[in-house]
Amino acid sequence: MADKRIFNFNAGPAALPLSVLEKIQSSFLNFNGSGMSITEISHRSPLFDEVINDAVARTKRLLNLDDRFHVLFVQGGASLQFAMIAMNFLGRGKTADYVNTGTWSTKAIKECQIQNKPIHVAGSSEDRHFSYIPEALDLNEEAAYVHITSNNTIKGTQWHSFPDTKGIPIVADMSSDFMSRPLDMDQFGMIYAGAQKNIGPSGVCMVILREDLLKTAEEHLPSMLKYATYAAKNSMYNTPPCFGIYTVQLVLQWLEEEIGGLEAMVALNAKKASLLYDFMDTGDFYTPTAEKTSRSLMNVTFRLPSEELEQKFIHQAAEKGLGGLKGHRSVGGCRASIYNAATVEGVKALVAFMESFEKENLT
Amino acid sequence: MADKRIFNFNAGPAALPLSVLEKIQSSFLNFNGSGMSITEISHRSPLFDEVINDAVARTKRLLNLDDRFHVLFVQGGASLQFAMIAMNFLGRGKTADYVNTGTWSTKAIKECQIQNKPIHVAGSSEDRHFSYIPEALDLNEEAAYVHITSNNTIKGTQWHSFPDTKGIPIVADMSSDFMSRPLDMDQFGMIYAGAQKNIGPSGVCMVILREDLLKTAEEHLPSMLKYATYAAKNSMYNTPPCFGIYTVQLVLQWLEEEIGGLEAMVALNAKKASLLYDFMDTGDFYTPTAEKTSRSLMNVTFRLPSEELEQKFIHQAAEKGLGGLKGHRSVGGCRASIYNAATVEGVKALVAFMESFEKENLT
Repeated sequence: MADKRIFNFNAGPAALPLSVLEKIQSSFLNFNGSGMSITEISHRSPLFDEVINDAVARTKRLLNLDDRFHVLFVQGGASLQFAMIAMNFLGRGKTADYVNTGTWSTKAIKECQIQNKPIHVAGSSEDRHFSYIPEALDLNEEAAYVHITSNNTIKGTQWHSFPDTKGIPIVADMSSDFMSRPLDMDQFGMIYAGAQKNIGPSGVCMVILREDLLKTAEEHLPSMLKYATYAAKNSMYNTPPCFGIYTVQLVLQWLEEEIGGLEAMVALNAKKASLLYDFMDTGDFYTPTAEKTSRSLMNVTFRLPSEELEQKFIHQAAEKGLGGLKGHRSVGGCRASIYNAATVEGVKALVAFMESFEKENLT
Repeated sequence: MADKRIFNFNAGPAALPLSVLEKIQSSFLNFNGSGMSITEISHRSPLFDEVINDAVARTKRLLNLDDRFHVLFVQGGASLQFAMIAMNFLGRGKTADYVNTGTWSTKAIKECQIQNKPIHVAGSSEDRHFSYIPEALDLNEEAAYVHITSNNTIKGTQWHSFPDTKGIPIVADMSSDFMSRPLDMDQFGMIYAGAQKNIGPSGVCMVILREDLLKTAEEHLPSMLKYATYAAKNSMYNTPPCFGIYTVQLVLQWLEEEIGGLEAMVALNAKKASLLYDFMDTGDFYTPTAEKTSRSLMNVTFRLPSEELEQKFIHQAAEKGLGGLKGHRSVGGCRASIYNAATVEGVKALVAFMESFEKENLT
């Protein structure tokens, strides 16, 4: 495989659009005629202003954001957001609702507990191994926000519609489905997403934050842990992760100009997911692990008849240039992550391989 | 200038070795025969383990670190370290000494004050506009650590030897001279450095932390703000900034294999700095702003006879392919940042330009 690219089903860091990678490569020694690499230019230069401002403008267009929303770039991934959200929005006397739909929700809750923040678990799907999205939520009208994980990478579940929280802002970890579909932003106070699944490389986390929620934030926090610092300085209080932001900009440009926006993106994503789920539903050899109504369009998790067959499947797939099909180490099994940049061609190749593997291994 | 690279004197993000950039570029679509870009591979893969482990091993070799030291990669830059150091090492009843040698020291102090940590300013060069490194320090024997900024990017000063702290560990912000010279590590409890000056792109901060200091750290902190989390997980508790760490690895390889280690590096750095300072000292047209004994080998700050001439100088230099010579916006003037990757050839070109500019503009 040394001389060609594979079909990459990694859960994150994950596949990026080839045209984006080629653009980065071709200008890597001389960005935009500057005589410098994108990694060498000053973040205080007009050259970089153009990059970050274009990334913000494209985000606003793609998500139809009005002026209430700040678009921020933060480091530390979603895991730092788990802590920052509690620091910023759960000052003395405040509480929040958390819905627990798996590993990442559990971690978000844990970072509140570490800080002795009094949060309430308003719903959970732990009773059936996080294989579904809970419908009935026990919401607290005093909550500062309701936290959800919109897509659960490990268990392969996804919120297909968002709960009615009676005006309480939803704060959503969208790390694994950000920019994969249009959103009605009126429900959201904040959305955050580690870039390394749908929109860029690891090392940059996007935060969409509504002004009214920002206004309720704690003042007395270290500068780098306070959303107000990022909002006041266009995410450049200190040196931002320039290469990451640049890659995000190019991915957003690809989304707008090559894909045609989020309506077109979700149609493609639904098509890719259907190819896999429909194929699996026609037989008994492959068993999707998520309950049918909660299946993720991003992470298709499934089991084979035995762990031995799963090992063999993952191994043979890799040999055929279908990479990253191993399930998360905490649950085993198989997983095909088919984020925005995964191609229909790649998914078709995977389904074809699954068909032939099944035939060869039916007992 | 669209078709050629410039001599880049940016203060950070800054020049990177051309051979490193070329290596990144050539394998950008297919890293190490994986069929994926370095931005697309899993941080849980043997491929990435090799990258991060090699970066750690090279750091240990270059700095002669023994097993007491952890080598960590953190996001958020030095600015997040300002806050994390206080969180981790200044629990109830603890205090620390800070030496104030300019903007970045002042910010480090401010992040302690925001957290109501009782620190003591043990020395300062504010009386002469931070143009020198203070010699006499008023150290507190009860201090948990003594914090210094080893090189001051804005004012162009540098600690050429480190203070005797009577066994109290020094915690040093080395963002702008990390890996520019050998160090006697016995004095240091911790060294941290945003990568974007001497060792890589922005978005990754290296932390060298001694086990005994780590043992004194607070336990009750959010996971991402606790050094123990990084030490326990080889900096991969969550997805690390893979591209940044990869670039750091290549820069460290360049340092070892092309430059020949830190003794060779400091000799080169001293040579480059001498070319500039010696030239300026022979006349009155260019005036270095740092006091002679405190001059930085990394950031050569200087003034011209007038601000008009400075503007003209910066502008004409840029036209000749000598970029990034503007002083920091807070102090004005000129600055040539000549970090590790700045070449002797580039510095010679700068001196030649300075000579001709002086001749043309002598009144």
